[in-house]
Formats: sequence, C-alpha cells, structure tokens
Amino acid sequence: MSGPDPWFDVAAEVRAAETRARPYLLTTPVVPSTGLSAAGGSAGGLKCENLQRTGSFKARGAVNKVLTLTDDELGRGIVTASTGNHGAAVAYAGGIVGVAPLVFVPRGANPSKLATIERLGGRIRVEGTDSVESELAARRYADEEELTFISPYNDRAVIAGQGTLGLELLDQVDGLGTVFVAVGGGGLASGVAAIIKNVAPAVQVVGCSPAASAVMYHSLRAGRVLDLPSEPTLSDGTAGGVELGAITFDVLAATLDDFVTVEEDDIRGAFLDLIELEGLLVEGSAAMAYAAARAYSKRSAGTTAVVLCGGNVGVERLHAILDDAEVDDAPAEGAQAHAGPLSRSRERK
Amino acid sequence: MSGPDPWFDVAAEVRAAETRARPYLLTTPVVPSTGLSAAGGSAGGLKCENLQRTGSFKARGAVNKVLTLTDDELGRGIVTASTGNHGAAVAYAGGIVGVAPLVFVPRGANPSKLATIERLGGRIRVEGTDSVESELAARRYADEEELTFISPYNDRAVIAGQGTLGLELLDQVDGLGTVFVAVGGGGLASGVAAIIKNVAPAVQVVGCSPAASAVMYHSLRAGRVLDLPSEPTLSDGTAGGVELGAITFDVLAATLDDFVTVEEDDIRGAFLDLIELEGLLVEGSAAMAYAAARAYSKRSAGTTAVVLCGGNVGVERLHAILDDAEVDDAPAEGAQAHAGPLSRSRERK
Repeated sequence: MSGPDPWFDVAAEVRAAETRARPYLLTTPVVPSTGLSAAGGSAGGLKCENLQRTGSFKARGAVNKVLTLTDDELGRGIVTASTGNHGAAVAYAGGIVGVAPLVFVPRGANPSKLATIERLGGRIRVEGTDSVESELAARRYADEEELTFISPYNDRAVIAGQGTLGLELLDQVDGLGTVFVAVGGGGLASGVAAIIKNVAPAVQVVGCSPAASAVMYHSLRAGRVLDLPSEPTLSDGTAGGVELGAITFDVLAATLDDFVTVEEDDIRGAFLDLIELEGLLVEGSAAMAYAAARAYSKRSAGTTAVVLCGGNVGVERLHAILDDAEVDDAPAEGAQAHAGPLSRSRERK
Repeated sequence: MSGPDPWFDVAAEVRAAETRARPYLLTTPVVPSTGLSAAGGSAGGLKCENLQRTGSFKARGAVNKVLTLTDDELGRGIVTASTGNHGAAVAYAGGIVGVAPLVFVPRGANPSKLATIERLGGRIRVEGTDSVESELAARRYADEEELTFISPYNDRAVIAGQGTLGLELLDQVDGLGTVFVAVGGGGLASGVAAIIKNVAPAVQVVGCSPAASAVMYHSLRAGRVLDLPSEPTLSDGTAGGVELGAITFDVLAATLDDFVTVEEDDIRGAFLDLIELEGLLVEGSAAMAYAAARAYSKRSAGTTAVVLCGGNVGVERLHAILDDAEVDDAPAEGAQAHAGPLSRSRERK
C-alpha cells in the first residue's frame, strides 16, 4: 500500500467535491442558538448536520469518495468497517453508484445499527470481537480481493467531502468568527478547516475532543501521531486512536487555530441543555463541540458556529444517558472546557 | 366582544403575513424521511418546524400578530395565557416590537417553561389553578386594562402567520401530494390549508388529532363547535377544547381534505421511531402527525409532507416518556391511524 502524498491541496479538492457530491447531499440549516447566545456576548449558530442524509456528516465524505472511483473499481466492490455513522454513510453512497458495499462489523454489534446499514443497502459481514479486529479483517479482505476499502478519515476524497460542510458554513453565517468542530480521526475537521482557512483566513477554527479520548490533540502537541489509550466517552463518535501516517495530522497541524478538550460531565451537561434549551437531540460528539463553544465563546469575536456533527443516538442509548444523568444529578450548566493554544513548537505553514 | 367576520380571505392575509413577518422567522428545512419512505410508496419529507425560533410554529402567528398592532395598542400592552409554545412565541414577538408581554400561567406551572418565557422577555403572572382559569383571568385583565389579548388560534393575524409555513412547503417540496398537519384549536391547520388550497388545490391537506382529544374533528363532523371533554394525551400541544365561535372552524370546514385521529400507542410508537429512524426529537403533537402520515401515506400520490410542528419536549418529560415506553413495551411499528373522509353533510365551498 503506497502512502498518501505528504501534503495536498485540500481546499481545491473540497471545491471539486462540492461540485461532484452536491446532488446527493443536503445543505443542512444553521439555527440560532439559545444557549450559546446566553453564554457569551457573541451570537451563536448551530450547524444541524444531524439532519444530513444518514444523520451525520459522514455522508459527505462517503459520497464524494464513491463518486471518485472508476467503473473498474466500482465493479470490483467497496468494503468498509463500521457499526456506526460511517457504515451507514458508505451504504448510502454505494446506493448512488449502484454498488452494495460490504460492511464489516464485530460480533455483538447493536442490531438496530446493523438494520440501518442494511436498510441503506449495505451487506453486513460479522468478523472479530471488537472494532479493531473487524477493521483489520476488512482491510485484509479488501487487499486479498482487490476491493476498495473506504477509511472513515484517512482518505483524501473523504476529507474533501467533509469539507463541503465548511463551504456551506461560509455561505450561511454572516460575520462568522469562530467554528467549533469535533475531532476524532480528524476527517471532518481537516476538510472544514482547510477550506475555511483558504477562503476566510480570519475565521478561527477550533478543534474539540473529549478529554477521555483526545489522541489527535495530544498528537498535535507532540508533533507526531501518538499511540495512546482511550477511556470511554459520551462522545463515542470521536473516540479511539489515530492511524500512524494519517493524512489528517498534517492538515490539522497547518490549519487549526486552537484545540480544546472537554470533560465528560460537561459533555453530558451540554447534551441535556441541547434538549432543554435548543430542542435538539444530537450525538455525544456534537454535544462535546457545543460544550467547548460555551466555555470558549466569551473570548470569540463575530458569530460562533458549532458543528452538530450527527444525531444518531437511538432510543436505548438516549434512555441510558438520561438515567445516568438523573443518578449523577449532574449540573446542566457551568460547563467548562479546558482551552489553551496549541503547542506552536511544531512547524506551521 | 364583537365576533370575527364569518369568513375572510385567509390566503391573502397569509401573503401579507409572509411579507410582514419574514425577517423574524426561519425558513425551516424539509428533510427526507426514512420511516415514511419505508412505510409507503411515496417519498416523504419532514418539515422541521421544531427548528423554528422558540422551537415551534407558534412564533409565526405571534410575530405576525404583534406586527399588525398599532403604536397605541403596543403602548397599552400585550397579554396572553400559556405555559407552553404560545407563551414563548408571544414573548419572542414582543421583543421584536419592544414590548414585554404579560403571560398568565396557572399555579404549579413547569418552572423550566416559565424560565424560557422570561428569558425571551415575557413577564409571568401566576393566576388560577389550571389553564382555563388562567386564561379567563388574562382575558379579564386585558378587557379591564384595554390591553391586547393574543389568542393562540382564534385570531385572523395569528392564523395568517401560521400559514407562512404552507407557503414554504409549496416552495420547498417538489411534487407535493399530501400534507399532514396537527389540529388543536386549528390555527396552524387553518393557515396552512387555506394557502395551500388557494395556490395548489390538488394538494391534499389532512388534519390530525389525537383520538383522546379530538374536539375539532368531532366538531367538524357535527357541523358545529362542540363542547367535549378531553383525555390526557402525549400530543399535549393539540389538547383541549375549541372556543365557541372559533374562526378556525369555518376555515377548516372549507379547506381540509380529510381528518384522521391517532391512538396514544401509535403516537408513542411514532415518537420513538422519530428518535430511532429519523434522529429527531419532537413534541407529541408532531409525532402524532407523523403517525397519521405513516398509516395513511400508502393511499397518497406524490410526496407526503409531515409538519413537525414543535420540538420543545424538555429533559424531564422526555425521560418520563422513555420510562413509560419501556414499562409498556409498546411496539414501535405497525402504527395505525383511524382515517376516514370527513362527513360531507355540512356545506362545503
């Protein structure tokens, strides 16, 4: 497997993705935020990517990726590994090009998530006991059978697709000052930050991760991708490690203005406040970005936008979160994020 | 108190409302529905009015109403009675014209709802032990002090404001076939049906009410406004009686194509499926319309649109609904609504 280019023009690829993928994507609305405007002086907007097709931003990258594949590649087939939003997004994208992707999942995966993938046209293959084993099996199978494996973030076309969200934000928000965006593997943040810094360099782009699983945050501070353990987090959409050599690392190092980490209590408080104050049900990773924005926005000029990156919580998990919140009697306000400028020791361009 | 005109040109007033109120309203998105498309042959779209300012369609009518008041009327003041969406909407609307409305609420009203009204600039006055007593007190006070009482539905300007939602739907949905809209007092349905039947008479507009509280449904069948009891319902936004002489009655009699009632189990199933399949948290009244559309849409041609009329559930009530659903183990599919053509015995124009 040959490595990706060390650097590439993400912004140009985002523009190409916009043209290519737009017919299959929704321009998701930005709605005024009650909680953000109350927290600080600046007005706040919530980018409701929870309303995107398949319920998360992942559709953007997956659609762009499949539309870049040749007929020969499509004929051989598409493989991925994910029980969550990426699996659903690849299934949706496959439907656009008439291919039923093979989606590897570990044993014991949530049946309702698998049903979603199948409803969208994905074919489930159960392999391994956890997501790491399942992904390894998927990659091995793709290599052996010469199929296209679609990474959730370590792929130029996927990153470019996610960046279309940034183009929408620039178009939708007057006086955009700061954008808060969740970082897991960094696909979304890479695409969004690259296009925003290209078009409107004065807009601040702030990455956010749960303190319990902030591998990219620590990697950027260290100047290289680290292999770190992750604790469980409500922001499960951003949890887990970062691939060695992930192309998102260089993009984020060059484009993010700042990076904040958020404690679990604050993510939970934000999750509850999104229901109570904004009337919005979103995933933990979206609540995490909202928590970061509330703690940070007093320092921001212009309009603050928070990317609510997905909304697939499900009844069972929602119920569990509400039960936990009641037991813990967690305060639903006073959320604090731990914000600080990124280490500037690594080279920036 | 003089009665309203027996008939008026609602569609023309909706157009005027559109011009007058638009700067203060959001064009809420219509998103593709997973559940509706699965239920029937026709594609389905969800009108996300839960994303409207103040979290429900009520902002449309309240904003239009205050913008029709004279400086003299505004100077004397605005009064309403509501612990819910209408109270929040009037508070928001008052802010636009620089008036802090007086909002009457009964003793024991939910503190978090009162906090929302106050945050939006409303002044709370606690009167009476239930919403009927509170409304009577508000109307009496308005009469005595010569203030403007804003009815949640029995007001031409309020109805016209709600109708702006119908204009958006006509603009947003290609091949619109059928619109499902919740009916309580009928303000929303009146405005929406009047403008849609005026612009695109072939589009079917179907009213929906919970079977447990379907006063307008039974009134339309009887040909006159009935005084009927209501049972508790998850669709609390549409619950309760209809004022004698309500102007919505004549509008609905002339414009609705059909009217369906929905059982509580089906509302709850729809509420859960909206979370699970659509990733959307909405009020019971919105879930009620979704349940009706699922049961009915197999018979519809063209695109089906469901008005998700509001999203202010709150953490406490959401948790209670999820707890109840678990206890009852209610099936989340196979929802059935009891649909039938309206009695045609009354005169239609």
